[in-house]
Amino acid sequence: MAHSEPSASKAVDGGLSEEFAVPSHAEEVKKLMAEFAEHHGSAGRRVVLITSGGTKVPLESRTVRFLDNFSSGRRGASSAEYFLDSGYAVIFLHRHRSLYPYTRLYTGVSLLDSIRSESSKEDAGQILVDQNALPNIAKVLKRYQAVKAAGLLLPVEFNTLSEYLHLLKAAAQALSSIGSKAMFYLAAAVSDFYIPACEMPEHKIQSSNGPLQISMKMVPKMLSPLVKDWAPKSFVISFKLETDPSILLERARRALETYNHQAVVANVLDTRRGYVVVVTKDTQQELVLTDEEVQKEVTLHVGLLFVILFLHFLHLLIIIRIRKCQGHDLLLERKTKITMQSGKRSNYSHQ
Amino acid sequence: MAHSEPSASKAVDGGLSEEFAVPSHAEEVKKLMAEFAEHHGSAGRRVVLITSGGTKVPLESRTVRFLDNFSSGRRGASSAEYFLDSGYAVIFLHRHRSLYPYTRLYTGVSLLDSIRSESSKEDAGQILVDQNALPNIAKVLKRYQAVKAAGLLLPVEFNTLSEYLHLLKAAAQALSSIGSKAMFYLAAAVSDFYIPACEMPEHKIQSSNGPLQISMKMVPKMLSPLVKDWAPKSFVISFKLETDPSILLERARRALETYNHQAVVANVLDTRRGYVVVVTKDTQQELVLTDEEVQKEVTLHVGLLFVILFLHFLHLLIIIRIRKCQGHDLLLERKTKITMQSGKRSNYSHQ
Repeated sequence: MAHSEPSASKAVDGGLSEEFAVPSHAEEVKKLMAEFAEHHGSAGRRVVLITSGGTKVPLESRTVRFLDNFSSGRRGASSAEYFLDSGYAVIFLHRHRSLYPYTRLYTGVSLLDSIRSESSKEDAGQILVDQNALPNIAKVLKRYQAVKAAGLLLPVEFNTLSEYLHLLKAAAQALSSIGSKAMFYLAAAVSDFYIPACEMPEHKIQSSNGPLQISMKMVPKMLSPLVKDWAPKSFVISFKLETDPSILLERARRALETYNHQAVVANVLDTRRGYVVVVTKDTQQELVLTDEEVQKEVTLHVGLLFVILFLHFLHLLIIIRIRKCQGHDLLLERKTKITMQSGKRSNYSHQ
Repeated sequence: MAHSEPSASKAVDGGLSEEFAVPSHAEEVKKLMAEFAEHHGSAGRRVVLITSGGTKVPLESRTVRFLDNFSSGRRGASSAEYFLDSGYAVIFLHRHRSLYPYTRLYTGVSLLDSIRSESSKEDAGQILVDQNALPNIAKVLKRYQAVKAAGLLLPVEFNTLSEYLHLLKAAAQALSSIGSKAMFYLAAAVSDFYIPACEMPEHKIQSSNGPLQISMKMVPKMLSPLVKDWAPKSFVISFKLETDPSILLERARRALETYNHQAVVANVLDTRRGYVVVVTKDTQQELVLTDEEVQKEVTLHVGLLFVILFLHFLHLLIIIRIRKCQGHDLLLERKTKITMQSGKRSNYSHQ
């Protein structure tokens, strides 16, 4: 892939290709994503790449055991629906079998418990969907089919950490052509650690050898080359999930300083359904639900996505103004205060 | 639970309750399983407990990361169907979201791609299943509904290793009342290693702390108390998956010697679709497919289950004869040779 990747050096991406095997379909998927971005970008549409689900990190080359990250893919899948409703085209880079847009509404409902046969004879008659078991299925089916017919959703699957890293890089390069119209919404739960192929045992680790010692290396951070080299004009949002609330904001701010991207969506494992904060260099937008609202399954989602869409809109404006006034550092405009109140209840604080 | 578990000492189960938190619903599930076994046992039915899917081993108490074992749950789910077809009642102890009997046939097919609306208006008309997208769905639905109506399938879910271990113990105790009519078909891919709660970090491990060192203890082997104490008359089959073919048979035989159960189903990760061997103390039944047959998706499954059912049948005969001829050690009868040829092609060798 060297001809198209002048920056694919160890310095830029932590030696991605040397340390992680390139999936055989990476080039083909990259081409698909580039065509998708080109097509929708030239139609004036914004394009978001959503990453979703956890990554699988093998402990053996012939893998029986692996390290995984907690993620059902719920946020990624529901965000995809919201972006589609808001006029975006969506590349959905998701873990194999994590939740999928629209169908996620019916997770936990067994297919066979939600259909019935019209006839009592075997192999005869129609099979009907029980619309009580799958509420709103008619509406959802309509939305799904409209999205599919318009070619607005491009699903791409990954399974292992290696696949994720290479496909993210391919996506970043594929979307760079549409500049600030591209958003990266990096909601996947990506492992921070891995075992290099050369240090991995070939065969299944035997329990008869006694207790297990595992030594893992740090995964190269893709955000850095993504923002600096691969898609420098795009709008990039990373996610931070912590278990300790006391370090949340500091970690989010440190990520922004380190990677120089646009926003971090941060929350805490235990309270994630009732609290989320969107941190940018100059602003901090909190969305909070009461315990009662969480119980009633009120979701922070619409409020959160509203903030994100607004930030992308500002980003587009700034980039346009920078183009118009060459020579002026209008990046200062980023300091525009966000004053809308979004979500059921929200607090706003300005650094 | 002490009143019902005279043998729940550290010596017997490796200190299960001390090392692994008891799931809150364990007693309730145990009662359900006992009633299920009692009901079907008294109707003269054999009952099989199938375990299926991998286990999740947390690395942090507020879990973001966990160790997992490779398993889609395909073998467990298809075995359940076969046992149901053969007149068994089935307790299906499976990992949350692993493949489920009957519905496993449609894995990978999206719900929304397999239905269509009868009407073009929103919220109106019936939704029909596209029987081309879900072949044989009418037949499968009929079988599923018959099994459900007859109450022959009791699904029980687990997620973490702790839940698996406690629910397996509960199942063993619940099924002991039906003696040799009970089969344990332990197809789940259970972790051999875990981090004790007292050694686990509370919060998410920070990547900023540098590379990760993990130290894991051995999981207590449940097979030993299951065979010796909890359900001593039952028919117990364990599974062994290796990546190195050269150690397969030796490991299978060693397991039989160590735990003194009835059979090991052993195979190798890379060739698992085309080769499996059922090892008992005195016999060894290999089932082999050619590469061509594997390509054509011929399955070893029916042959394998035929061998298992035959072995359970012999086990029942032996237990009955032991009862009839008290004082005679008719366990010798177990040395009956299995001479049938099962599967598409099979080899038989006698030790």
